[in-house]
Amino acid sequence: MSRKLVYFDITGYSEPIRYMLHYGGLKFDDVRYNMQEWPIKEIKDSLPYGQLPIYEEDGRVLNQSIAIARYVASQTGLLPTDPWEQAKLDAAVLNIYDLIKKLATFFYAQDPEEKEKLKKQVLEDVDYYYSRFEKELHAGGGYFGGKLSWADFILVNTTELLNLQLNQTVNTEYPAITALISEIYANPGVKEYLANKQSSAPVS
Amino acid sequence: MSRKLVYFDITGYSEPIRYMLHYGGLKFDDVRYNMQEWPIKEIKDSLPYGQLPIYEEDGRVLNQSIAIARYVASQTGLLPTDPWEQAKLDAAVLNIYDLIKKLATFFYAQDPEEKEKLKKQVLEDVDYYYSRFEKELHAGGGYFGGKLSWADFILVNTTELLNLQLNQTVNTEYPAITALISEIYANPGVKEYLANKQSSAPVS
Repeated sequence: MSRKLVYFDITGYSEPIRYMLHYGGLKFDDVRYNMQEWPIKEIKDSLPYGQLPIYEEDGRVLNQSIAIARYVASQTGLLPTDPWEQAKLDAAVLNIYDLIKKLATFFYAQDPEEKEKLKKQVLEDVDYYYSRFEKELHAGGGYFGGKLSWADFILVNTTELLNLQLNQTVNTEYPAITALISEIYANPGVKEYLANKQSSAPVS
Repeated sequence: MSRKLVYFDITGYSEPIRYMLHYGGLKFDDVRYNMQEWPIKEIKDSLPYGQLPIYEEDGRVLNQSIAIARYVASQTGLLPTDPWEQAKLDAAVLNIYDLIKKLATFFYAQDPEEKEKLKKQVLEDVDYYYSRFEKELHAGGGYFGGKLSWADFILVNTTELLNLQLNQTVNTEYPAITALISEIYANPGVKEYLANKQSSAPVS
């Protein structure tokens, strides 16, 4: 089966998808456009809704990062079968995305004073959400859904994103989240990906 | 089984969930808070992430409108079983939500001149998305996924929302979308709900 994930040469919305594909040992073509060169008109116009990421499997195309992540989870043992358990994980992922969206204004702010003010607000948002995520992980024996699932991957990569953007470690006071990061980093497929990450040149 | 959907006395993000519950003939408690009185501190503080809607089933609680809608779809025959087919519908729903998000700035604008300008932008966005939705419905024999699913309900209720907010019928030039609206309105459960809708007082 041929698989292709097309995104930018950043982590962003695609990194949990990449992690899960590596976790599951599913070979895929990791195509990355240079964000500085975007939009590339002929590529953008060819996308179903003008946006990346897209995922292709044997020529079939899927857009929307959440839809792709959930599908890949279904192929890598990271999605339970019970509808209520699935729904609880959907909610967890969407709650995490709500927090990511709150990062956008900070990310695009240019004025240093304004950016510092917005950073404080984001850190308050992180506290609000992360204290709740931590509680959910405790209730689930270290995972959102009682065992490792796609929602856990989304949280780990979101933490990477926040730490990078805010230039500080937001998970320090959340032991369950920190343990989850260590567990996912220790997976052989993810470990190999991370080891190769720095040496791989972006495809642009 | 006891079911409860808690939201505001508006259509918004919960209307497709209400429609699908009525479509499936699943009895539920349709609790609606008066938006003018929101936030009610003791209620907001009791919510998992401070936001409505929430859905309760035999005391179990679920938040996030997309997660709730998808779960209700799984209980009412509106979700296929194949993972790829499911993923295509997830993507359709998320594409529709991207369009809804573009409505927010227009919705909150106060200045009439600014609002008129933003309305033009929203109508352009509607064209961009609706021409693609229409194409997808054509390819699927009138539905996003080859037969009636939750993505179709989300599109129908989004069209209601857009028509209401923009004070014009955005679906006029899209025959497949218009036919889909008629089909869902003709369902006995939905029909009864719509007939009772005007006479029902909001629970606040």
